[in-house]
Amino acid sequence: MSWYDLKGKDLISVKDWTKEELDVLLRVANDLKSRHYSGETLNPLENKTFMMLFFNSSTRTRQSFEAGMSQLGGHSQFLAPETMRISLDREPGGGESIKDTTKVMGRYAEGAGVRILEDKVDYYGQGTDIMYEMGKYSEIPIINMASDIYHPCQSMTDVMTMQEKVGDLEGKKIAVTWAHSPWVRSWGSIQSNILTSALYGMDVNLAHPEGYELDQDVLGLTEENAKKSGGSFTVTNDMDEAIEGADIVYPRNWMSPDRYEIGKEKEIEMASQHKDWKYTGEKQKLADPGYLLHCMPVDRGNEVEDEIMDDPELSFVYDQAENRLHLQKALMALTMGGSF
Amino acid sequence: MSWYDLKGKDLISVKDWTKEELDVLLRVANDLKSRHYSGETLNPLENKTFMMLFFNSSTRTRQSFEAGMSQLGGHSQFLAPETMRISLDREPGGGESIKDTTKVMGRYAEGAGVRILEDKVDYYGQGTDIMYEMGKYSEIPIINMASDIYHPCQSMTDVMTMQEKVGDLEGKKIAVTWAHSPWVRSWGSIQSNILTSALYGMDVNLAHPEGYELDQDVLGLTEENAKKSGGSFTVTNDMDEAIEGADIVYPRNWMSPDRYEIGKEKEIEMASQHKDWKYTGEKQKLADPGYLLHCMPVDRGNEVEDEIMDDPELSFVYDQAENRLHLQKALMALTMGGSF
Amino acid sequence: MSWYDLKGKDLISVKDWTKEELDVLLRVANDLKSRHYSGETLNPLENKTFMMLFFNSSTRTRQSFEAGMSQLGGHSQFLAPETMRISLDREPGGGESIKDTTKVMGRYAEGAGVRILEDKVDYYGQGTDIMYEMGKYSEIPIINMASDIYHPCQSMTDVMTMQEKVGDLEGKKIAVTWAHSPWVRSWGSIQSNILTSALYGMDVNLAHPEGYELDQDVLGLTEENAKKSGGSFTVTNDMDEAIEGADIVYPRNWMSPDRYEIGKEKEIEMASQHKDWKYTGEKQKLADPGYLLHCMPVDRGNEVEDEIMDDPELSFVYDQAENRLHLQKALMALTMGGSF
Repeated sequence: MSWYDLKGKDLISVKDWTKEELDVLLRVANDLKSRHYSGETLNPLENKTFMMLFFNSSTRTRQSFEAGMSQLGGHSQFLAPETMRISLDREPGGGESIKDTTKVMGRYAEGAGVRILEDKVDYYGQGTDIMYEMGKYSEIPIINMASDIYHPCQSMTDVMTMQEKVGDLEGKKIAVTWAHSPWVRSWGSIQSNILTSALYGMDVNLAHPEGYELDQDVLGLTEENAKKSGGSFTVTNDMDEAIEGADIVYPRNWMSPDRYEIGKEKEIEMASQHKDWKYTGEKQKLADPGYLLHCMPVDRGNEVEDEIMDDPELSFVYDQAENRLHLQKALMALTMGGSF
Repeated sequence: MSWYDLKGKDLISVKDWTKEELDVLLRVANDLKSRHYSGETLNPLENKTFMMLFFNSSTRTRQSFEAGMSQLGGHSQFLAPETMRISLDREPGGGESIKDTTKVMGRYAEGAGVRILEDKVDYYGQGTDIMYEMGKYSEIPIINMASDIYHPCQSMTDVMTMQEKVGDLEGKKIAVTWAHSPWVRSWGSIQSNILTSALYGMDVNLAHPEGYELDQDVLGLTEENAKKSGGSFTVTNDMDEAIEGADIVYPRNWMSPDRYEIGKEKEIEMASQHKDWKYTGEKQKLADPGYLLHCMPVDRGNEVEDEIMDDPELSFVYDQAENRLHLQKALMALTMGGSF
Repeated sequence: MSWYDLKGKDLISVKDWTKEELDVLLRVANDLKSRHYSGETLNPLENKTFMMLFFNSSTRTRQSFEAGMSQLGGHSQFLAPETMRISLDREPGGGESIKDTTKVMGRYAEGAGVRILEDKVDYYGQGTDIMYEMGKYSEIPIINMASDIYHPCQSMTDVMTMQEKVGDLEGKKIAVTWAHSPWVRSWGSIQSNILTSALYGMDVNLAHPEGYELDQDVLGLTEENAKKSGGSFTVTNDMDEAIEGADIVYPRNWMSPDRYEIGKEKEIEMASQHKDWKYTGEKQKLADPGYLLHCMPVDRGNEVEDEIMDDPELSFVYDQAENRLHLQKALMALTMGGSF
């Protein structure tokens, strides 16, 4: 495979890319990181445009994509979604069709990223469906900047960071565990993490209280990935069991599958019944050594205790956040046809 | 005339430029388009700034100006208008004067675009008056990115696209026709199109139901342009008559002159009485061949049927949308003093 | 001192920089201004990122920082503050900690500016405290783009402009006077001006009606600065006394210290009792010659009469506004490590 083959390729879910393609992405990300640290100025996407459609707002994702594009010599447009009525089931008199919006955007830009979470769509999965629909009409790459189901840029950054810190991931144990917080978070980061961790041969231990079951399709796919890679995948309702002997711990809040029927207030109340689901110094003693992985923002004091969050030996989080930049630069450079 | 003469020149209405000047604009637009396709990287406006004042939001206009400026090596600022109270009749204690706002902006930027439609002003024409007022105080070019009366960047793009597709426009027939939609659109794109089409020697056929009369001054000017160019201008209430034998058909909704007295709901109801004003396959058979021209967004199923919209032989719309980019790049490069 | 020493240095208040450092800033600002006028293209911050956190919106500050960064070859991100809940007294379950937000931002960008005025914080001074807190965690420079207490970029621009117009400032008299307007303005620009004017050896005359007393700490510091520099500092409730013989007059509205207890409506009513506090042609006759200095926006007809505002001999304001650009370019280039 030549790098050139990735030109124009969408990244909506990691499952759409082969492991070989994902490995190219990681290799280029590490290369761009080194060159950034050496102070090299690159312009592989000079004067080119990356459109960012944020149907949901974001801090880190926006900052890292926009800075990444600047570092590649190009420019990203921060687009206000409210002004673009976009829908899968468009009637005459509704907004502009996805086809028209997408086709025109492709005449101005060399790539586009889209972020749509569950509260901007009618049913779970629609945000992702919209991205695939855009991909169908688009000649430029469509990049998932977080959807209701997936967050591939985050999960590939997780892999990059773990490889950087602990080397080959095969046989390493990761505990991906629900944690208490009133923030009622999306599923994308967690679901993409287990999928990708299993693909890279890790022993994936998913833990959550009853009532916080994730998407069955994603769980099935994770199982398959684990089988293929020689890793493993287990689900438990016991946080300690998952953390026991884990190299890496990813403690993160997520919403229940009933989120839309029960409303946000009820979710917060439900979550508050599991305040002991927190990554503490006590629990870290069960792990080996239990490095902290987290997509941020971290709900300090709820999801994780400060003593772990602020321990430079244990906490990967700031380096992990930084790696979003390098991973996404590699992704944009490869799919938008930059040569460097 | 040297290209240099266009440096600093405002474009608020096409009527303020000579035909010779407009031809230079078209020539440079075509040149920049070729060079873009050949993959050439240009930096005529390197590190320069174009301010975009969007009093009304926009998708395509913003995307094309911002991408165009990036392709020229410069940067455009997307400015939130709500935070800038701007008014023609300023009292002490009101917002900053137009003079002050404009003069200071000219110290930071090399050009500025302004978009003000009818719902942001007190009377029809005020949006355009504000632009001329800004032009009075400004040493940098003021570019109309759509006003209540005019949309010169759109209409010059229309000319560029039609020339590209059918060659010399003299004697070609264009049907510019009202079409049903609940979108209650502005007059600028349509009024600028008839003005410019007549200037370029076309037989301009304007069609609309009774009650959708446009600005009498613009109609008079279109008449004059037609006389000078050897084209013609007719107005009819019969859509079929306008389409009969037309090379090009531009089916587009617009509001009635009573828009502000009767309100938007009443407008929608009024428009719904003319659902047969739609560019259909049936109507296309009357034309010759009736290429579809449209400034987008298209209200598919209302203004035009999908079979025409999606026919790559008949529909100019995606190429037309793309040409906004090239036309505006030429406009910015010429008026902001880029050499290339 | 080498210029390099300024790399990574925060500018939150002028009081944190030595006079020698401030003089370097002015020297580089003047140098960059000359080079801009000579048409030279510079790229000392090529492809680098400056984050702009506007908790309060702004016209001129945003335009000048963003254009400045473009002129240096870099890019600035205009960040929407509402989406970033930031607070000094964070509880678990609140927003992301200032530490986390700041540390991650520093992984993507080479510098950051922050604007927080009194209506976004819980007490006077908290906006400034937040900036110092960010500075504590940040490895990249934190630049105050206007806080509840200070506006150092404005006051250093004031110095740059006054030096440009009247030469050495020692012994020059400046009248910094309250002026009537319903705009209820912040204290930052005025407080930073008196601090800095005193530091540069001017005779600073502060005038305001009773009830408009400024921050006692700032007044004390101004007094100290005047003593060190050989200048002077007096406060009066008589506008004429301050203007008498002044080289420069800075007539500007500001809120009373009771702003938050009495509310905005009461402030406006209170201000309206001092409509004679206006810089008029009559008052200018008292001065010598009473050049107009103002941070803009100017409330024409309230703070200043048009005859002074529009007198190119007397009014510094447009050149002063322009100098924001050059001063801030110098500041970013120096603190963000640009070499040129």
